[in-house]
Amino acid sequence: MRIDGRIPSEMREVKIEKNYLVHPEGSVLVSFGDTKVICTASVEERVPPFMRGQGKGWITAEYAMLPRATGQRTIRESSKGKVSGRTMEIQRLIGRALRSVVDLDALGERTVWIDCDVIQADGGTRTASISGAFAAMALAIEKIAADKALPAFPVKDFLAAVSAGISTEGEPILDLNYAEDSTAEVDMNIVMTGKGNFVELQGTGEEAEFTHEELLDMLDIGKAGIEKIVKHQKMILGEEITAKILGGVTG
Amino acid sequence: MRIDGRIPSEMREVKIEKNYLVHPEGSVLVSFGDTKVICTASVEERVPPFMRGQGKGWITAEYAMLPRATGQRTIRESSKGKVSGRTMEIQRLIGRALRSVVDLDALGERTVWIDCDVIQADGGTRTASISGAFAAMALAIEKIAADKALPAFPVKDFLAAVSAGISTEGEPILDLNYAEDSTAEVDMNIVMTGKGNFVELQGTGEEAEFTHEELLDMLDIGKAGIEKIVKHQKMILGEEITAKILGGVTG
Amino acid sequence: MRIDGRIPSEMREVKIEKNYLVHPEGSVLVSFGDTKVICTASVEERVPPFMRGQGKGWITAEYAMLPRATGQRTIRESSKGKVSGRTMEIQRLIGRALRSVVDLDALGERTVWIDCDVIQADGGTRTASISGAFAAMALAIEKIAADKALPAFPVKDFLAAVSAGISTEGEPILDLNYAEDSTAEVDMNIVMTGKGNFVELQGTGEEAEFTHEELLDMLDIGKAGIEKIVKHQKMILGEEITAKILGGVTG
Amino acid sequence: MRIDGRIPSEMREVKIEKNYLVHPEGSVLVSFGDTKVICTASVEERVPPFMRGQGKGWITAEYAMLPRATGQRTIRESSKGKVSGRTMEIQRLIGRALRSVVDLDALGERTVWIDCDVIQADGGTRTASISGAFAAMALAIEKIAADKALPAFPVKDFLAAVSAGISTEGEPILDLNYAEDSTAEVDMNIVMTGKGNFVELQGTGEEAEFTHEELLDMLDIGKAGIEKIVKHQKMILGEEITAKILGGVTG
Amino acid sequence: MRIDGRIPSEMREVKIEKNYLVHPEGSVLVSFGDTKVICTASVEERVPPFMRGQGKGWITAEYAMLPRATGQRTIRESSKGKVSGRTMEIQRLIGRALRSVVDLDALGERTVWIDCDVIQADGGTRTASISGAFAAMALAIEKIAADKALPAFPVKDFLAAVSAGISTEGEPILDLNYAEDSTAEVDMNIVMTGKGNFVELQGTGEEAEFTHEELLDMLDIGKAGIEKIVKHQKMILGEEITAKILGGVTG
Amino acid sequence: MRIDGRIPSEMREVKIEKNYLVHPEGSVLVSFGDTKVICTASVEERVPPFMRGQGKGWITAEYAMLPRATGQRTIRESSKGKVSGRTMEIQRLIGRALRSVVDLDALGERTVWIDCDVIQADGGTRTASISGAFAAMALAIEKIAADKALPAFPVKDFLAAVSAGISTEGEPILDLNYAEDSTAEVDMNIVMTGKGNFVELQGTGEEAEFTHEELLDMLDIGKAGIEKIVKHQKMILGEEITAKILGGVTG
Repeated sequence: MRIDGRIPSEMREVKIEKNYLVHPEGSVLVSFGDTKVICTASVEERVPPFMRGQGKGWITAEYAMLPRATGQRTIRESSKGKVSGRTMEIQRLIGRALRSVVDLDALGERTVWIDCDVIQADGGTRTASISGAFAAMALAIEKIAADKALPAFPVKDFLAAVSAGISTEGEPILDLNYAEDSTAEVDMNIVMTGKGNFVELQGTGEEAEFTHEELLDMLDIGKAGIEKIVKHQKMILGEEITAKILGGVTG
Repeated sequence: MRIDGRIPSEMREVKIEKNYLVHPEGSVLVSFGDTKVICTASVEERVPPFMRGQGKGWITAEYAMLPRATGQRTIRESSKGKVSGRTMEIQRLIGRALRSVVDLDALGERTVWIDCDVIQADGGTRTASISGAFAAMALAIEKIAADKALPAFPVKDFLAAVSAGISTEGEPILDLNYAEDSTAEVDMNIVMTGKGNFVELQGTGEEAEFTHEELLDMLDIGKAGIEKIVKHQKMILGEEITAKILGGVTG
Repeated sequence: MRIDGRIPSEMREVKIEKNYLVHPEGSVLVSFGDTKVICTASVEERVPPFMRGQGKGWITAEYAMLPRATGQRTIRESSKGKVSGRTMEIQRLIGRALRSVVDLDALGERTVWIDCDVIQADGGTRTASISGAFAAMALAIEKIAADKALPAFPVKDFLAAVSAGISTEGEPILDLNYAEDSTAEVDMNIVMTGKGNFVELQGTGEEAEFTHEELLDMLDIGKAGIEKIVKHQKMILGEEITAKILGGVTG
Repeated sequence: MRIDGRIPSEMREVKIEKNYLVHPEGSVLVSFGDTKVICTASVEERVPPFMRGQGKGWITAEYAMLPRATGQRTIRESSKGKVSGRTMEIQRLIGRALRSVVDLDALGERTVWIDCDVIQADGGTRTASISGAFAAMALAIEKIAADKALPAFPVKDFLAAVSAGISTEGEPILDLNYAEDSTAEVDMNIVMTGKGNFVELQGTGEEAEFTHEELLDMLDIGKAGIEKIVKHQKMILGEEITAKILGGVTG
Repeated sequence: MRIDGRIPSEMREVKIEKNYLVHPEGSVLVSFGDTKVICTASVEERVPPFMRGQGKGWITAEYAMLPRATGQRTIRESSKGKVSGRTMEIQRLIGRALRSVVDLDALGERTVWIDCDVIQADGGTRTASISGAFAAMALAIEKIAADKALPAFPVKDFLAAVSAGISTEGEPILDLNYAEDSTAEVDMNIVMTGKGNFVELQGTGEEAEFTHEELLDMLDIGKAGIEKIVKHQKMILGEEITAKILGGVTG
Repeated sequence: MRIDGRIPSEMREVKIEKNYLVHPEGSVLVSFGDTKVICTASVEERVPPFMRGQGKGWITAEYAMLPRATGQRTIRESSKGKVSGRTMEIQRLIGRALRSVVDLDALGERTVWIDCDVIQADGGTRTASISGAFAAMALAIEKIAADKALPAFPVKDFLAAVSAGISTEGEPILDLNYAEDSTAEVDMNIVMTGKGNFVELQGTGEEAEFTHEELLDMLDIGKAGIEKIVKHQKMILGEEITAKILGGVTG
């Protein structure tokens, strides 16, 4: 039994609230338990300089936490005048992961900006961000697909992320909350497609190691978690968008 | 009749949701119509270097907008590596205004950090921020007052803010939304105490001027708006905290 | 009687020295008592990106203090690598105020850069800056008007600024020096046109409040101060430029 | 056959030149083929503020490339005034990996600074950096162990890193050079201990995915590569240091 | 004959206005022709961290130009967020030069901050700055010597600086104005003591070279220029301070 | 006899290793005793904005030290987010010196970027950098001259740099190592052409002075040192490039 009563392979309650804000092309409020992230997707009709003239689109992400998303107030990165290494790592991860399931040629020469702003943190902010950002992005791209008459629906597959770890008792556990994350021996972030392939795999055993067998155990429960999140994404995106994405998968 | 159907002296719907987040000592989600701001108050048991050793407290504020709080995505200040002049002006205003109704001696040598994060913007973000921040601060100070056995309740009066302006038709209007703010000839921010005294008055007629009479008209409808917001604050803070604050006023 | 022998409604000696530097299109050294500011106006034949192609001009201002303008040496903002919130507030105020009396269409697609560098500070540096900057700007625009054969003289009215406050004795006082500013209960900056209309009004009662009646008293003595400064501006600009500006006012 | 004549599971020539510089406590020049990195380890007799007073040591890493380590000149991060996201990711990875094989309690309250400066880049700069940094660190810690009479040898195991990927032909390949890295579908960085446990695993399939089977294949050839590098480390560190480290492993 | 009518070995008119500002411990306005610099000396009763506890003083300098000191407006370094290489070179030069004639032990553990702010530039701003800064520093140290009862007068000798060059006609010229500086083949800055010894010598022939003979010619006219400036310094500092400095020289 | 056994006018062993790296157009590893600098020259087919459209080339230099080039680890300038004054002074010096021996018209509208990265420091890093950078630049320009069929060989003369000083015994010494540099009374950097003319001369006597006679002595031994370094440059550049450079000198 875990600190919050879950069994080892159990996720926290996942909620995705669609169209949370009025301005963005796509937006959701995603919750993994007490972790809450506002994810928005904004469309800009141009691409960064290094991509111009190729007829391809781009997807990029930014990530931040409200100062009091955490138990102790965190100094704002705008006040410090620079973005931390941790933030950069996370936003590079989110962008890379999302691009892996989007056909950038079909998107056309435009950028989808993803913003993940954590308003409350209890572990797993990066996995909740990726899972919510996928939904916000799909909503925004659905709008572009209609408005701009794209030749094909650019989102090719579902995408979600979840964390797994090895508890202090040596047991593989899914979707670690902050208390678990602080004590776990190993922390693994798994990003997978709806089809079940890996997109990113980041495992670290800071001041610890993990064996080949432990790796396989974590991947196993992670896969089940991903499937549960994808089910939520399908539900809130609705049948029509889901069909377009799955069409992309099987086509 | 105004663009959203209000009469000139009418405020938008005001909502203040108490204890919006789990971690901060005080927090609210405040809405003035479509403008929504998360206001948190965090207590730190020390003061900035320039105030040390005086036995007095300090209150300071930070303000930011999510990139997609606005119709067009705004670049994050952390990415630009610096805080804009507009942001600095607003956070200095919020801090100054709140300090005017707090007895810093009674607070003791600690800092209350106010964070106002605009998640959706439709005009009046600074006045909503001040009005919500007051409530978050009162909640946090109530906690300190109990935990630290303060000699007196440090909040001495209520505090709220509202905007007023002169419409393109030359009429004084209250609580401008974004569309009105963009076209109004004059923009006045009024910060007042529950007793009806001024704390801050900032009127600007960029590329326009305003007369002494127009000033008096704006102050008039502003006062009525402030009274309405203070009524909401009393309601959500409850009778007990209200009595402590009013005790401070009359005592 | 005030600390320096003035009566409550009395300004310090105002001096404006014309063409103080050889390079700028317009320049003055303005003094309000011991407060001395070098104000220059520089003309650049282009506008910032957000204004291009509209055929309109722009006016922008920067403000700084020499490190030893003050009693204690202040660290240079260039050494700190960033401009303080106070500086940004002041330079935004100066720019906004000046733009309110200039017809930007008549100015044509060019920028007037205002630089206010305080070489000695004794309170009222922002009001002296605005009052001096107006004169430097008028001198520079007179040059453009001649050189570029502008269709109309773009300066439409005089503009000056003064501070007022409530002394520790509760009396309204004009043009506060540093010692008064440090102890006054309320600090109000008033920017008015030569015609007597408000352009900016910024009153703050940090850790204090002010009543409606005190506001009216401060506005009253402020208006008289403004009139005195405008008289000086007219004198140093001379009859010809004054006529062009007044022509703009009455025409 | 690969572009440089290697078979898929073959590493490039690995060279580690010991005591490359005169000043650092530990230093090597490590080469993986044409990739060359100067790795130094510097000992500072204090720890960062967040670790003070715990009697434990700390290991931290910095990483940079000479501007012309690459085919096109790269702008210096000192000139840009900030460290890129990629650099931060890599230096966090190096530090985390090294800490996992060091007993920070045995190290005592001091910091080992690792600097990895790439003087020539041809793919795999982060894996070469980790592999070389381990050797530099071991040399430096050997010095401390002697000078400071540490209670136990703090390095507990060997540590090396290697990259693996899936070639455009769909085949798992080891130790990708720059040309392979640019075209590979998947890029996996594997950090392992001498005992064969994972310390870090970072796989990314930018704009591609990888299957569970491909993952296992890459781990398989990666493990063989790690073993080869560890053999080199043992050779240049010599029998005495190797015995101390292995003592730590078995003890 | 030179562009402004001077003969080759002639300096521009040198003026030093004493006690130019009310706040600093020492201040002058120095002019070399149209080049005008406000030099102030501020005393701080502590030294930088690297000098603490040695009982010695420190002298440091900062240099800046008003944006419109020049023919074209220069962007403020505070707006750019960093100090240029040219500024750093100049301020390091000023500090180093002044320290060479001060007995830092006699000064005691305090810092003299020198600020040189160019309000109008016409060539030779760094040499005017050094020459004026010496006078401001001597005035400030005279105050400390009295107030703090220093054991000896810390200023040991006079110090001045002048530029020399080779004109386009191949002739050595003294104290170049902006027009000459822009076209001269060689630019030499000479800093000498009142006794006639070198303190700094910086000669550069950007895109040109100079011979040993040309060097000797420039040093020759430079020495005469230095003597003229030192005479001015003695005059404005007065007999008493001069005697103290010369006492230091001969004693 | 000096600390390392040299006589006063003796240089340390000079080594220049040609084509040290595979990517740059020109590269060397230069050593003056234990001081070792990697110098690279990179060609970019465009010039900075201020030089565009003039048909002329540009040469610019950057300089850095590895953190552990020194006895104590130095903080990286990229981590501090800004380049120090010392670094800026040195890189401006290197660029200026190299440009003095290059015919920028003959180079054509392209930039040669020089990078000097000190991997080990023992005094004289700037003089070693200039001497090595000249060789790297000549190698790169030889490549351009061939590839781009330049009308004339743009390098007009050899260029080298050396330091001289006055030892604590009052004797002029050549090519100071770190220990000597720390104690010497005067530090002079001399940059000369192969023909024996001065290009830069920077002498400073921090907290000391030097006489006219000492200056002449230092120039004397400096000239001999320069000749020795130029001999090395000719040897490693080879007869063909040497002839092209000397052709430029005599032609």
